[in-house]
Amino acid sequence: MVKAKKYVLLQHFSGFPKESDLKLVKEELPELKDGEFLVEAVYLSVDPYMRAYEPRLELGTVFIGAQVAKIIESKSREYPVGKYVVGDFGWRSHTIADEKAAKSEALLVQILPDLGQLPLSLGLGILGMPGNTAYFGFLEICEPKAGETVVVSGAAGAVGSHVGQIAKIKGCKVIGIAGDDEKGKWLLDELGFDYFINYKKPYLAKTLAQCAPNGIDCYFDNVGGEISSTVLSQMNLFGRVSVCGSISSYNADYGHLPKATITQGFIVMKQLKIEGIIVTRWDNRQNEAFQQNLQWTNEGKLKYRETITEGFENMFKAFVSMLEGGNIGKAVVKV
Amino acid sequence: MVKAKKYVLLQHFSGFPKESDLKLVKEELPELKDGEFLVEAVYLSVDPYMRAYEPRLELGTVFIGAQVAKIIESKSREYPVGKYVVGDFGWRSHTIADEKAAKSEALLVQILPDLGQLPLSLGLGILGMPGNTAYFGFLEICEPKAGETVVVSGAAGAVGSHVGQIAKIKGCKVIGIAGDDEKGKWLLDELGFDYFINYKKPYLAKTLAQCAPNGIDCYFDNVGGEISSTVLSQMNLFGRVSVCGSISSYNADYGHLPKATITQGFIVMKQLKIEGIIVTRWDNRQNEAFQQNLQWTNEGKLKYRETITEGFENMFKAFVSMLEGGNIGKAVVKV
Repeated sequence: MVKAKKYVLLQHFSGFPKESDLKLVKEELPELKDGEFLVEAVYLSVDPYMRAYEPRLELGTVFIGAQVAKIIESKSREYPVGKYVVGDFGWRSHTIADEKAAKSEALLVQILPDLGQLPLSLGLGILGMPGNTAYFGFLEICEPKAGETVVVSGAAGAVGSHVGQIAKIKGCKVIGIAGDDEKGKWLLDELGFDYFINYKKPYLAKTLAQCAPNGIDCYFDNVGGEISSTVLSQMNLFGRVSVCGSISSYNADYGHLPKATITQGFIVMKQLKIEGIIVTRWDNRQNEAFQQNLQWTNEGKLKYRETITEGFENMFKAFVSMLEGGNIGKAVVKV
Repeated sequence: MVKAKKYVLLQHFSGFPKESDLKLVKEELPELKDGEFLVEAVYLSVDPYMRAYEPRLELGTVFIGAQVAKIIESKSREYPVGKYVVGDFGWRSHTIADEKAAKSEALLVQILPDLGQLPLSLGLGILGMPGNTAYFGFLEICEPKAGETVVVSGAAGAVGSHVGQIAKIKGCKVIGIAGDDEKGKWLLDELGFDYFINYKKPYLAKTLAQCAPNGIDCYFDNVGGEISSTVLSQMNLFGRVSVCGSISSYNADYGHLPKATITQGFIVMKQLKIEGIIVTRWDNRQNEAFQQNLQWTNEGKLKYRETITEGFENMFKAFVSMLEGGNIGKAVVKV
């Protein structure tokens, strides 16, 4: 008899999430039926999108999220014991799934290919959803050309740090925006970003203009708000903007969203194209992104960093720390 | 010897344009040289874009704008006496142009085709630049499908009223937003809009949700600012936004732009596509828009209204009135 731990949504977040909004509960899992398999979480993901999706979750359900898990029991030939999978099992230590549900959009279970020397946790980062988001969200929407100037906000996060490196691979000049200088040091010294701007320091607009004297061609936006208004005001004719996140406003309740300088004037005059993206749009091309990101990683062109929190009991702590910008690179929890 | 009158930019607008920012001066025009022709303004256009472009004009130059003019003297075979042309001659009563310059992007002189019973002024409206803007800016960017819900802001202006009618022709449900009820009456009773919302009245968001219970698929934006934030918050998955103008902020100096509720959260979650447009992008397809708009007009499917101010000396008054929303349909000055 396996005892599973899971986080259940007790009440909807109001402003910044509180620990009491979730409850850690235990449940006994039943015996497996034919076609079912049991997984044990190894790494769990905490991502900004979770805050944005939370209002749609029903109270009483398990909180959402992907994990790398090991199959520890199985009555399914497709999902044999010992294999590692990535799936949207939510914040659970153990999960029973059946073959059919595993292929549904709700779970999206995939057997993790052999990553060689690379850690399994990358299935939640550069070789998983954030990596696919960076790959498609940047290349398909921004269509970067060599020599162009690219700005990335939330640049030290899982997606942002990946986007900046793809931009460098494509021959662009890359400016990363983030909220502390340690992050900046990593972007500049290890990832090869050309410039780093700490948005918490004054004169963002002036600093940006100094780093991008010829204007900005592509903007990959993870944060929204006033930072984005400033970037948009310095874009070039026919500039492209991929809007991947709005972490600056995720903790504002609907009706109390912050205000920022309006951008329509810049959008018109520069004929900008701005597109919001969710990675599921490219679900049928996942393997393309995976293979390319794996190749770049093995070639040393794509570097990564993980902020690992130990212990399933610390899921909430890791989640909140990520929302506060406490992570560098991908935030994961190791069970 | 012909005496021309012209408006020269004396000082850059600061906030709302002041009459003293421009100066009406007279000049004697020289004799025509070979290849030159002399036009006399018949109708002059006043458009929102003029306010947006003004900061780029050099002091001392003639203020920008298109006019319908009659060729009254000519040493050019291509531009014979008696023909009417549309060209970007600026705020001038009389202009000498030569054949070469006439074809340049700066002047864009075109001989006005025979409009039958229709007034020549339409060359500045539904059969001119605003008509082309409505045609390409809406159809190319919003890609409306029958049954979809379309919102137009600045709905009673030259471009907005045209867009709404194209949306009706394409089988869409059309909601127009403007600033007074007389405009609304025209949109509903004569142009066939399905709903009109006066944004100066309270509860814009609630009223919009009542008019668009299934959400908004396309938004044609002439105004920007808080109205646009409200519309974007109610858009459907993969909604399309064509940003044609930002009249809500044209009179704010750079650095003092207004703020509005941020929209990145909606852009991401609904994967919206937002694109700024200037009609010159489709200059090589002008005839397509002209022919289609002419056909729709002759069929009675495309109605128009003009707010005509008499007298070249009243150009500034007409311009400011248009910026204040005083016009219904296209604002023109008749000499």
